[in-house]
Amino acid sequence: MNQHIQPVPLDKAYRLLTHGPTVLVSGHFEGVDNVMAAAWACALDFAPPKLTVVLDKATRTRALIEASGRFVIQVPTAALLELTNRVGNRSLDQHPGKLREAGVALLRLGGDTLPFVAGCAAWLECRLVPEPHIQATYDLFIGEVVAAWADERAFRDGHWQFENAGPEWRSIHHVAGGQYYAIGEALRAQED
Amino acid sequence: MNQHIQPVPLDKAYRLLTHGPTVLVSGHFEGVDNVMAAAWACALDFAPPKLTVVLDKATRTRALIEASGRFVIQVPTAALLELTNRVGNRSLDQHPGKLREAGVALLRLGGDTLPFVAGCAAWLECRLVPEPHIQATYDLFIGEVVAAWADERAFRDGHWQFENAGPEWRSIHHVAGGQYYAIGEALRAQED
Repeated sequence: MNQHIQPVPLDKAYRLLTHGPTVLVSGHFEGVDNVMAAAWACALDFAPPKLTVVLDKATRTRALIEASGRFVIQVPTAALLELTNRVGNRSLDQHPGKLREAGVALLRLGGDTLPFVAGCAAWLECRLVPEPHIQATYDLFIGEVVAAWADERAFRDGHWQFENAGPEWRSIHHVAGGQYYAIGEALRAQED
Repeated sequence: MNQHIQPVPLDKAYRLLTHGPTVLVSGHFEGVDNVMAAAWACALDFAPPKLTVVLDKATRTRALIEASGRFVIQVPTAALLELTNRVGNRSLDQHPGKLREAGVALLRLGGDTLPFVAGCAAWLECRLVPEPHIQATYDLFIGEVVAAWADERAFRDGHWQFENAGPEWRSIHHVAGGQYYAIGEALRAQED
């Protein structure tokens, strides 16, 4: 494993998503890996940490997650802008070589078949919390985070380090089409 | 009304939240206004536009929303950093003068009692979509956006204008405690 990838304590895992980055969602079932982009992912709880993610019915990744009950939410960086946009635009059904064409390299951080996208800033391994009504009605999925890791160059000691890292480490935040914003300047509010 | 506040077409309303800003949530019931901060808000659907927001059981704003079935999600700017942090830290129950002390000025953009926070970059007026099970189990609320507005200095022609506006107009993205990031540099992925 890359020496920079370090476990994140579960009580700090919510901080990986609280600032609202666009994420990559990955899953695996019966020998098939897939990765998609999702701008609509959000922290849901602190302990145990949970999150929500919107997965369209047309996506192959959703089918893998429904079949396996597991998935990974990972935070791509500005260095992965093109990769993120490509896996968001292309379906595995129409593009069987999608992951290779988008330059996706997979790690198996969790120690089994679940695929993690190399080069991200952080990874949250999730167990699907089944809620069939909201999955069917709103395409809304709930995950409980069972393990988390981050690249210490982007996140360490429980905090993002964007102001101390190169611009290629910034999280990216989708607007529409191919348009994104990188995360920006650190701001600190006064003690209340 | 401030001449810079313009309606946003409902089919573009999702773009106000897709980049993951921290928001202010406001509500009103029987003469009581309140405003809270929420980092865990997310777009949910395009048409009709919907969103999710996590509202802790201890918040007075949640009670107002459950009683009235209506709320506003608004996008504060870097200029409202202190206001946002204060309304996020203080409860109306312990601080009856909370809104005045935090410097909150309210507009009535919707034409009735629903309160909108002046100075924000965008406002989404929502109807609560009742889902009692996920409200009770996960503190997760779904809103359907029935009208939206933006300050044209920050969002116009269906797009955020952060790269063309002063830094005080940037959306803010919470990390933890008083720590936030402003949204940053515009990035454009290649056509696929």
